[in-house]
Amino acid sequence: MSEMKSLPLGAENAALPSFEDIKAAAELLLGHSVKTPLLESAALNDLVGGRVLLKAETLQRTGSFKFRGAFNRISAIPEPDKAGGVVAYSSGNHAQGVAAAAALLGLPAVIVMPSDAPAIKVENTRGYGAEVVFYDRFTESREAIGATIAEKRRATLVRPYDDPGVIAGQGTCGLEIFEEAHARDLNLDSLLVCCGGGGLTAGCALALEALSPSTRLYTVEPTGYDDTKLSLKAGHPVPHGEASPSICDALLSPKPGDITFAVNRERVSDGLTVSDAEVKAAMRFAFRTLKLVVEPGGAVCLAAVLAGKIDVAGQTTGLTLSGGNVDAELYRAVLAEDS
Amino acid sequence: MSEMKSLPLGAENAALPSFEDIKAAAELLLGHSVKTPLLESAALNDLVGGRVLLKAETLQRTGSFKFRGAFNRISAIPEPDKAGGVVAYSSGNHAQGVAAAAALLGLPAVIVMPSDAPAIKVENTRGYGAEVVFYDRFTESREAIGATIAEKRRATLVRPYDDPGVIAGQGTCGLEIFEEAHARDLNLDSLLVCCGGGGLTAGCALALEALSPSTRLYTVEPTGYDDTKLSLKAGHPVPHGEASPSICDALLSPKPGDITFAVNRERVSDGLTVSDAEVKAAMRFAFRTLKLVVEPGGAVCLAAVLAGKIDVAGQTTGLTLSGGNVDAELYRAVLAEDS
Repeated sequence: MSEMKSLPLGAENAALPSFEDIKAAAELLLGHSVKTPLLESAALNDLVGGRVLLKAETLQRTGSFKFRGAFNRISAIPEPDKAGGVVAYSSGNHAQGVAAAAALLGLPAVIVMPSDAPAIKVENTRGYGAEVVFYDRFTESREAIGATIAEKRRATLVRPYDDPGVIAGQGTCGLEIFEEAHARDLNLDSLLVCCGGGGLTAGCALALEALSPSTRLYTVEPTGYDDTKLSLKAGHPVPHGEASPSICDALLSPKPGDITFAVNRERVSDGLTVSDAEVKAAMRFAFRTLKLVVEPGGAVCLAAVLAGKIDVAGQTTGLTLSGGNVDAELYRAVLAEDS
Repeated sequence: MSEMKSLPLGAENAALPSFEDIKAAAELLLGHSVKTPLLESAALNDLVGGRVLLKAETLQRTGSFKFRGAFNRISAIPEPDKAGGVVAYSSGNHAQGVAAAAALLGLPAVIVMPSDAPAIKVENTRGYGAEVVFYDRFTESREAIGATIAEKRRATLVRPYDDPGVIAGQGTCGLEIFEEAHARDLNLDSLLVCCGGGGLTAGCALALEALSPSTRLYTVEPTGYDDTKLSLKAGHPVPHGEASPSICDALLSPKPGDITFAVNRERVSDGLTVSDAEVKAAMRFAFRTLKLVVEPGGAVCLAAVLAGKIDVAGQTTGLTLSGGNVDAELYRAVLAEDS
């Protein structure tokens, strides 16, 4: 668990996004992003003995929260740079977010994706009009490929998480969670956020600090890909260790971002982890009881609650469900397994 | 198409539910039913060239709109009759609605279900604490079995649709659709409602008449089970003809109700029908693009829009998505078929 300090971070604060940036992003996104519902299920509440509020970002444009950050970041590209378009590297959800946002804003987009990305994510990314360039996740560097393309085409690189504009965009998800909770006179005891590079977590952390400072914030990562949990312990960004493959393709980033971690270090209470089996059980619960299609990486917070990784009895707990971009073949296989 | 008359129905009006009943039901249901979101998908809008607003009753308590009518009707049972409990017959969604509402209100419940009802609906009905009695859909009368049980146990029969209290409860779904549309400054050109016995349609018709009289109302039924469409033409309730089996288990009622049809006759513009193949394509679209789990009967309105059964280009169209109670085995089979 990270030590909870209330002191500001000092000099590095200068580059960090602020709550004001999130409010500006919310205005910019109005009419473009979906104000996704904060759902509550009587069946889930009964099961865990507490109230659980589910921020269904699966229902967001492009099927994940990533559209928020992409649209906010791309909107900030200076006019003279727009003709060069954007380039991004992503396992798939950021890819779709960038492709859709770029199309809406009239910029060409090139997306560098792993050759083993889910087919639905590749097809959707192309469907939004982007050009897709594949790389081998195990032997090539997506950062290097992205940088080369950016230079060659004079394109702007839109990072998946370690960018103040992207973080501010994702923060609008947190803003909506707390505004909606307040509108219902609810105080969240805890908020669980699915965590890859930490962009959504950082955005939610800033919204939480401004709107609901008593709420405890938890990251949820796949077992073995717990770089944020390890970094919180270490006090600085460290990579996760050797890990077996995971079905959570959206959450396999090797290490927290410098900016995201600078935000999250002081604001996250603890890091939780869930196994693939727990994730699959959560996906089946979402199918059967919530009637929501959730991809593996999008189901980690629900998995943490259902598997008892955090005690939510008698509490009010918020969590993010995002995204919902799962191949039919994998989904069918998950449904076919016994719960 | 039914002749659109503006005259009141005369004497039979006495037994019909009114918009006031719907408003009273909405107050009663507050805090018990879910105010389900009215969703909009940029991808769907782009595809059809119009705005489509989806009332996601799949996210309602028990996974369908049926909870609304059941809770409203059971709440009205006089105190001395409560000990006898309730009895209902249903293919599954009304069963779950009645079982959950009875449990919340502290009444015992017996549900008469077809022996070939989806397993998920039977399990959930039992899960809410109700006793399930099976009958053979092809050789036995569920009405007769229900009446016998009601008499023997002094239980109150909660009809699936032909009851003013049930219709008023379902009408809260329509009330929410128009209130939310107004809150967003939207005027619906059309509203499509999934139709079995016509209870949801009748409730929505009364809400529409009070809140959005310029909106055209359409029922959607499975091919062959078009008794409401036929009745609208005939001007009085008639059964559908011989029909092949359909996967839309929730919408196989033989004939409109007397009360529901008395409401719907003057208020529905036309009846639409969709094939099982069109329903399956809509279920896959809901999985892939909307990230929503929708059962066959719940997907008929989406199917009608996607299959071009009504021209929605340049229009604002509302539709109901309800319910989401589909067996994993069937769902997997639907996903496995090509779109």
